[in-house]
Amino acid sequence: MRILGIDPGLERTGWGVIESEGSRLTFLAAGVILSKPTESMATRLNRIDTELSKIVQQWHPQIAAIEETFVNKNAASSLKLGQARGVAIVAPARSGLEVAEYSANTVKKTVVGVGHAGKDQIGMMIKVLLPKAGELTADAADALAVAICHAHHAQSPQYKAG
Amino acid sequence: MRILGIDPGLERTGWGVIESEGSRLTFLAAGVILSKPTESMATRLNRIDTELSKIVQQWHPQIAAIEETFVNKNAASSLKLGQARGVAIVAPARSGLEVAEYSANTVKKTVVGVGHAGKDQIGMMIKVLLPKAGELTADAADALAVAICHAHHAQSPQYKAG
Repeated sequence: MRILGIDPGLERTGWGVIESEGSRLTFLAAGVILSKPTESMATRLNRIDTELSKIVQQWHPQIAAIEETFVNKNAASSLKLGQARGVAIVAPARSGLEVAEYSANTVKKTVVGVGHAGKDQIGMMIKVLLPKAGELTADAADALAVAICHAHHAQSPQYKAG
Repeated sequence: MRILGIDPGLERTGWGVIESEGSRLTFLAAGVILSKPTESMATRLNRIDTELSKIVQQWHPQIAAIEETFVNKNAASSLKLGQARGVAIVAPARSGLEVAEYSANTVKKTVVGVGHAGKDQIGMMIKVLLPKAGELTADAADALAVAICHAHHAQSPQYKAG
């Protein structure tokens, strides 16, 4: 199963593609989509949409997995983050992909073993689990962590049943 | 100038298309895109995206105008609203349209004359300004109000200056 993991954000949207066969995970690609606060909202969101659509067309994932964005206490910044997240969900959905959502804690628990792991711990585990990924930015590593989280959960009997 | 107005929401996204020539406004079309809480987030956002894209293709607006969503005090609901809003911005942007944003107060002030007008007042003013629109849902009326707001602001010397 080929999985596209996405860690959405208005300034930086991390993405990563892995192949999962049984318990074997293979790194395929990862990167970050950047946008600047000086650009218009339409331009920024359109870039996330266009780049993610290209990634879907290039890598043909069978499913997308996205991190449930941290809900900030500030409603205005939650709204902006939500806008990026909405686009990150709709880009794979438009190509017919199912989009699975995982909380940040579930991702950390699955990849690192504890729910409150730091960014550096996730980066280290990604190096162990996907040695071919090489040097990654934190956003790309987070996206790969979401993809790995889905690979694990998709194998559970509960997931297969429903 | 043909304007697509959008009032985004996860359950109901209002839309309306008007033609503006000088101070003359003509109603062309309006409606609401609906989604149910029982559907997956990907399905709901994909419907908003698909329907708005169809509307852009059918009506060929030259610009889109969107209401700056009310920022709820609840960060979780702001995030969901943001997701719908991000998709409502990216759908016209993907077709190359500029997307102008107006606060709810600016829309009300432009259309009704006061910043804190109620939904019913907006509906009544839409009937006066666009008599051919006929009976409208509140969401479609709000979307037409955003389009009218842009028609007014696009005529101001400041806007034309860039």
